[in-house]
Amino acid sequence: MSNYIKDEEIQNNQIKETISILCEEESYKNVIHGPHNNIAMPSVESLKEIVDLLREVIFPGYFGNSCVQLETMQYYIGVSIDKIFNMLSEQIKRGFCFDICDDSNKQCLDCEKNAKRVTSKFISALPLIRYLMSTDVKASYNGDPAAKSFGEVIFCYPGIRAITNYRIAHELLKLNVPLIPRIITEMAHSETGIDIHPGAKIGEYFAIDHGTGTVIGETCIIGNNVKLYQGVTLGAKSFPLDESGNPIKGINRHPIIEDNVVIYSEATILGRIRIGKDSIIGANIWVTHDVPPGSTLTQSKKN
Amino acid sequence: MSNYIKDEEIQNNQIKETISILCEEESYKNVIHGPHNNIAMPSVESLKEIVDLLREVIFPGYFGNSCVQLETMQYYIGVSIDKIFNMLSEQIKRGFCFDICDDSNKQCLDCEKNAKRVTSKFISALPLIRYLMSTDVKASYNGDPAAKSFGEVIFCYPGIRAITNYRIAHELLKLNVPLIPRIITEMAHSETGIDIHPGAKIGEYFAIDHGTGTVIGETCIIGNNVKLYQGVTLGAKSFPLDESGNPIKGINRHPIIEDNVVIYSEATILGRIRIGKDSIIGANIWVTHDVPPGSTLTQSKKN
Amino acid sequence: MSNYIKDEEIQNNQIKETISILCEEESYKNVIHGPHNNIAMPSVESLKEIVDLLREVIFPGYFGNSCVQLETMQYYIGVSIDKIFNMLSEQIKRGFCFDICDDSNKQCLDCEKNAKRVTSKFISALPLIRYLMSTDVKASYNGDPAAKSFGEVIFCYPGIRAITNYRIAHELLKLNVPLIPRIITEMAHSETGIDIHPGAKIGEYFAIDHGTGTVIGETCIIGNNVKLYQGVTLGAKSFPLDESGNPIKGINRHPIIEDNVVIYSEATILGRIRIGKDSIIGANIWVTHDVPPGSTLTQSKKN
Amino acid sequence: MSNYIKDEEIQNNQIKETISILCEEESYKNVIHGPHNNIAMPSVESLKEIVDLLREVIFPGYFGNSCVQLETMQYYIGVSIDKIFNMLSEQIKRGFCFDICDDSNKQCLDCEKNAKRVTSKFISALPLIRYLMSTDVKASYNGDPAAKSFGEVIFCYPGIRAITNYRIAHELLKLNVPLIPRIITEMAHSETGIDIHPGAKIGEYFAIDHGTGTVIGETCIIGNNVKLYQGVTLGAKSFPLDESGNPIKGINRHPIIEDNVVIYSEATILGRIRIGKDSIIGANIWVTHDVPPGSTLTQSKKN
Amino acid sequence: MSNYIKDEEIQNNQIKETISILCEEESYKNVIHGPHNNIAMPSVESLKEIVDLLREVIFPGYFGNSCVQLETMQYYIGVSIDKIFNMLSEQIKRGFCFDICDDSNKQCLDCEKNAKRVTSKFISALPLIRYLMSTDVKASYNGDPAAKSFGEVIFCYPGIRAITNYRIAHELLKLNVPLIPRIITEMAHSETGIDIHPGAKIGEYFAIDHGTGTVIGETCIIGNNVKLYQGVTLGAKSFPLDESGNPIKGINRHPIIEDNVVIYSEATILGRIRIGKDSIIGANIWVTHDVPPGSTLTQSKKN
Amino acid sequence: MSNYIKDEEIQNNQIKETISILCEEESYKNVIHGPHNNIAMPSVESLKEIVDLLREVIFPGYFGNSCVQLETMQYYIGVSIDKIFNMLSEQIKRGFCFDICDDSNKQCLDCEKNAKRVTSKFISALPLIRYLMSTDVKASYNGDPAAKSFGEVIFCYPGIRAITNYRIAHELLKLNVPLIPRIITEMAHSETGIDIHPGAKIGEYFAIDHGTGTVIGETCIIGNNVKLYQGVTLGAKSFPLDESGNPIKGINRHPIIEDNVVIYSEATILGRIRIGKDSIIGANIWVTHDVPPGSTLTQSKKN
Repeated sequence: MSNYIKDEEIQNNQIKETISILCEEESYKNVIHGPHNNIAMPSVESLKEIVDLLREVIFPGYFGNSCVQLETMQYYIGVSIDKIFNMLSEQIKRGFCFDICDDSNKQCLDCEKNAKRVTSKFISALPLIRYLMSTDVKASYNGDPAAKSFGEVIFCYPGIRAITNYRIAHELLKLNVPLIPRIITEMAHSETGIDIHPGAKIGEYFAIDHGTGTVIGETCIIGNNVKLYQGVTLGAKSFPLDESGNPIKGINRHPIIEDNVVIYSEATILGRIRIGKDSIIGANIWVTHDVPPGSTLTQSKKN
Repeated sequence: MSNYIKDEEIQNNQIKETISILCEEESYKNVIHGPHNNIAMPSVESLKEIVDLLREVIFPGYFGNSCVQLETMQYYIGVSIDKIFNMLSEQIKRGFCFDICDDSNKQCLDCEKNAKRVTSKFISALPLIRYLMSTDVKASYNGDPAAKSFGEVIFCYPGIRAITNYRIAHELLKLNVPLIPRIITEMAHSETGIDIHPGAKIGEYFAIDHGTGTVIGETCIIGNNVKLYQGVTLGAKSFPLDESGNPIKGINRHPIIEDNVVIYSEATILGRIRIGKDSIIGANIWVTHDVPPGSTLTQSKKN
Repeated sequence: MSNYIKDEEIQNNQIKETISILCEEESYKNVIHGPHNNIAMPSVESLKEIVDLLREVIFPGYFGNSCVQLETMQYYIGVSIDKIFNMLSEQIKRGFCFDICDDSNKQCLDCEKNAKRVTSKFISALPLIRYLMSTDVKASYNGDPAAKSFGEVIFCYPGIRAITNYRIAHELLKLNVPLIPRIITEMAHSETGIDIHPGAKIGEYFAIDHGTGTVIGETCIIGNNVKLYQGVTLGAKSFPLDESGNPIKGINRHPIIEDNVVIYSEATILGRIRIGKDSIIGANIWVTHDVPPGSTLTQSKKN
Repeated sequence: MSNYIKDEEIQNNQIKETISILCEEESYKNVIHGPHNNIAMPSVESLKEIVDLLREVIFPGYFGNSCVQLETMQYYIGVSIDKIFNMLSEQIKRGFCFDICDDSNKQCLDCEKNAKRVTSKFISALPLIRYLMSTDVKASYNGDPAAKSFGEVIFCYPGIRAITNYRIAHELLKLNVPLIPRIITEMAHSETGIDIHPGAKIGEYFAIDHGTGTVIGETCIIGNNVKLYQGVTLGAKSFPLDESGNPIKGINRHPIIEDNVVIYSEATILGRIRIGKDSIIGANIWVTHDVPPGSTLTQSKKN
Repeated sequence: MSNYIKDEEIQNNQIKETISILCEEESYKNVIHGPHNNIAMPSVESLKEIVDLLREVIFPGYFGNSCVQLETMQYYIGVSIDKIFNMLSEQIKRGFCFDICDDSNKQCLDCEKNAKRVTSKFISALPLIRYLMSTDVKASYNGDPAAKSFGEVIFCYPGIRAITNYRIAHELLKLNVPLIPRIITEMAHSETGIDIHPGAKIGEYFAIDHGTGTVIGETCIIGNNVKLYQGVTLGAKSFPLDESGNPIKGINRHPIIEDNVVIYSEATILGRIRIGKDSIIGANIWVTHDVPPGSTLTQSKKN
Repeated sequence: MSNYIKDEEIQNNQIKETISILCEEESYKNVIHGPHNNIAMPSVESLKEIVDLLREVIFPGYFGNSCVQLETMQYYIGVSIDKIFNMLSEQIKRGFCFDICDDSNKQCLDCEKNAKRVTSKFISALPLIRYLMSTDVKASYNGDPAAKSFGEVIFCYPGIRAITNYRIAHELLKLNVPLIPRIITEMAHSETGIDIHPGAKIGEYFAIDHGTGTVIGETCIIGNNVKLYQGVTLGAKSFPLDESGNPIKGINRHPIIEDNVVIYSEATILGRIRIGKDSIIGANIWVTHDVPPGSTLTQSKKN
């Protein structure tokens, strides 16, 4: 028994000491967020709720708890939009405070005002997002022999889920919202394995099949009617370094994919190159140079 | 201050206008689900609960809250099965209504009746599913030097989790249940990165190691004692098009993998080809032709 | 109507019969956990909460609900550590009981005592884990032109999330905790698609970009300042078999990656080989032999 | 130890035996609900949610999560009413099935149809309920020197809460809804200690102060501008018995309280008597005969 | 602004100082529970769940989520009883540790063992509790002209709810379980306003109508077929004091109510007196002496 | 069928019309809260959480999830106090905005600042509240022969629960916090049936036994060592009316109860009278005049 008590003493001391080490500036200084700032980090849970509400609004009758009826649709969309406005402007405010706001007291009133302005503009873009998603749904349905209906595509396909998050995040990025767009695409990345940077520019009728492991880099430009399979990388080849040996931020370094291109699974396209329209890139291919329109690239024979 | 109020007015107008655009038929017509239909979409949350209950029943004592004891096991399995019957028949009914039911009023009674029949048959298949899973557990344990016990494999391995969902979904598909099987395999896809189409046919002693990015297409046939690694694609090569230029649905287009085949990471097997029994396919290989039994394919030397 | 009742009878019988089959030893014997043992399996939900608390402690002010302030930080860290001690020692006890404890009655008191000892030691390692994570954050920030701030890296990057789980799990494994480490890395695997075995040894300033499909095997040794991209496999080539034809467990079979190595997407490095320091391994490459320091491997030209 | 196991055996047997006794018809026959009926009991939780929604609709801006604004009020009220329609018609259906439906299969379609009709009529009564409640709020505010504002009365006063539930329940009772009205008044009884039978008829400007222990019987008739204090009983004096010696159901047996009456705490008014208008009944008084208009009754002097 | 910061400083200091005062022994010594004891207090939430499960078992088909069917009833009752055994024995163990266990380390194994024994005996008493409740339901139904069915009485009547809790608590008290019985009757007290001490002894066919404010003291003895109304007190008249001037604990000090007695609202019966069988006690009466069988007491005329 | 559709049309119209009536100013104008004000009502749920935290702090080791240990107590109390500060100052701000803030935009900054000041002062009063509660616990224990321990009194007694809420609310009222104090005492009223107005002034060693139906009015003054039983009313006798015939607010109108008074169940004390010290007021008594010190009042003989 005395053994047991001794154990407990030792453990209490270890724990006490650890707590005090963890509270020393030396330990926490590189990994702490804003100890003098009273604005919380954006809430990932709240953003999940917001994206769920957006999905409900974009695809009426598919998501959320209620059966849409034409008679009551306006009430539901009205409430969803109002909730989105309130919740999203709060999160965007937090994003501003996290990113750009030095003097928290003075600026935060501006942060709130700007957040509302930006959120309202974002909401105006929802009909556009819905239109673009309707083209993506058609593209996925038409291109997949296993697809049984538009509804199945909207409700089940991870590609559609990831593209929805991307299109939401991209609109927010265009409005210079910091941090939030990345959080939204990372949500989809976690759920689907599809990693689309919110900065990428993507046209209509876009489809990703299966999708796990697909990566689309920050400065990609993708035309209309493009289809990607799982494991495709549209990445950077190498990074010009600055004088301290670190990569220079913000340079165009990812591929341009023109209209009507198909890229099969695990293909890797690297660098600011151009894949000409109507081209087909085979599976497991590694491409680092421009490809003329109408090309078909396949892996050299293996067996 | 008057500035603030002006802002608010502008925003209120933007929002009001957006709501009314989103409620126009022109905007929603391609992305709405059944505005006149009163049956809700299948509930993904309810299906998650059902799959959790099934996992509890298949592997007693591993999942769920309670410690299984032989004395009380029958009560717990009895309750789980009864809950599965009630919850799953409701979801299957919704699947029928989503997919095949035109005249919602008349047919929905049939939908309910059929859903119960089908669910009851599915439940009869549980002992078979449990048997198959026990072979899969053995295969994973025997094939992985890092596996410490059957229990660790059952409790932690994403491969086992994905195969469980697949085997459940496949039985439902055999009973012609629409939509639900795909939802169940997509759950596992999201959690594990392993994408097995419920239509694939897979034998006993099946193992997937690591698994992220593995894709098994709708018309695959896989024999006994097959093992796959992460990033393996068993896909379609190309799709015959119909007169409107869209892929023809429902054609056999994925590989046949015979008994005792191992396929290493990132290998891509495309088209209705046959990988002969006892073959080994190396990592990052691209295969589009039949492979005779007993073959070993590896990537041509690189360095 | 009589039809309906007949249906119900048939279904009731099918269900009853299935329940009784599922309760037969013949059916459950290979897939049941400890029917005579009263200790529950480790709780994945509780472990999620523990890892969330650890993330809060390691990166103050980023996760959890509250805004960290220097005045109150010690209270919050004190409470978090106390909760971690209580919750984690319970889970570790369950891990011991699952793995090594035969006579549940006698040993379980030891299990509890040992679990507390081990948990207390683990807590002492938290300042080290925090230090290592601070180097990983710097590495990710410096190496990614798209990264906007340390904060964004800590809050959003799946690589950081997966490495945090790995570093926690690795410390637990060093203390011979069974099962729990694997559960913790599988959580990250599910969320990020990055699969790091807790047994791997990894140095400072480690970065994984995008990361979906990356696999790091049990016996890997990775130096300082190493960077991996998505889809990289550090795997085993083949497994020596024991006399019954099964792989021998516990042999060193995964690569050694020396300092300052970069490995691009989808590269596959197999077997107990050594990638010399300062080397660069290109995308989609397959490597099964030692690589001398300073090498650059790229895929042979394709087009 | 063997002692411990013996204990466990004894306990297992006791438990097993008890389960089997509890499953014998002899034991359960008087306390079981409809073993052959597949319609669940009304859900008290769902009814709580419905009453909360009704409170939100009746008193906009006081209850629920959102700040009412004139611009968006119609969306919120529209959604609340639609939810109330769906949820309440389901509960009313269950009430019908519980109460009046013999042949569950045939009638239940009627139950559903009738439940919808009735719910729709109930919703039409909401403006009336709101009007009546607005008079009750004024009465409570005017009569209580401690009341600070209409808002405090609406938000905090148990009397208002209990009267709201009563007015909802009474409208449902008028539509011949079984069981549900009683559940709704019992909710308020539990929260406030005020027990108003849904069958009572109560005029405008009704107030109950403090209210704990106040009882208003099934056949009471209460005029306008009446005020009651805590512990007041408006009850039955005695019950005419039927031939088997049980009270005859449904006879008028509770008091009639005319306009402008005040009844102080713990007064007990019993039987089908009439308290004339403008009367005052003192605390702790026991009244079993008619009281003429304008009377003031007080307890005979005590000290 | 500097004002604002000064405010913050003052507040931080006030708070810090208060925390340190609250942590001084002088402050907490009279109101702290067992600082060296590692066993938590009984969980009121867990006890609520247990009582809900008991209600489900006693009245099959009324409470809980599922529709009872004869085919599956045994599974549900089996699971409920098993859960009750596990949860209740844990709570009873906590009750023992709270009340009687000095040396927490040594005794707690006994506490656990005894708790299981006692719980198992309690479970054996469930058929008796169910039988008694069936008599109480009949008594409430027969005595109340407003009662529409047995089902309404079971599902809605606060009297039945309070008596159920009392009968559960009384069986536990008979097994010398500390603290838990009182918690269980206080739950009902809070929900219904009916305060029955678990020590009271109450016969069959017991009914309480309305019930708010009814109090039944610890040493009451109540015969068969007794009915009480709201606000009835069966209390103690005065307490013999010990030498330090405090009431002596554990003396018989509450009334004995014989068979077939009715006590109307707000009546107060005080002291170890006997109300003879077949008596009727009128409303608002105060009784402190024995009452012979067959008496009828009413308040002296008032007006 | 056409019948069914007709029904639906009628119902849709009824519902639509009701929604539009409910949105007319005529209907909502008397029952709406601040349509132009963006500050939400105080949150009852948040206040419940706050009161629970306060209970944890006042009685360490009794409430909340964790076992208090002296080593970690300061962390837990520190975190609880910090949470109380943040949550309560938010609720107090809402209280200010509800009550006194006209120009919501300008004043709300002040509301926030004042709320923080007030909350900080309230926290400084916690040691006093704890001290007073420790005297109340002793009083309850000493006065109740059924009380088994201080712990039982703290954990189970509704009187203690109600007095705790009252003492918290009273301190807030002294700091001129609007609305919140009343919400906090009404919480206890709902749970216990004890209705203490936060404005009452109550000394040390206060006890309420059973308590259902006890009412203590706004301007009561209660000395030390006073004990009340269930159903006691300390109320107002009559209200002086203002010129419009409404009661004048804020006049002293409730009794003064001096030290060492006991008031038995259902007694009613009305008006600004004085019950002299050491008096005993019997059950069911009605008192409207001063009572000299040392009096004993009992109901005139009944039988």
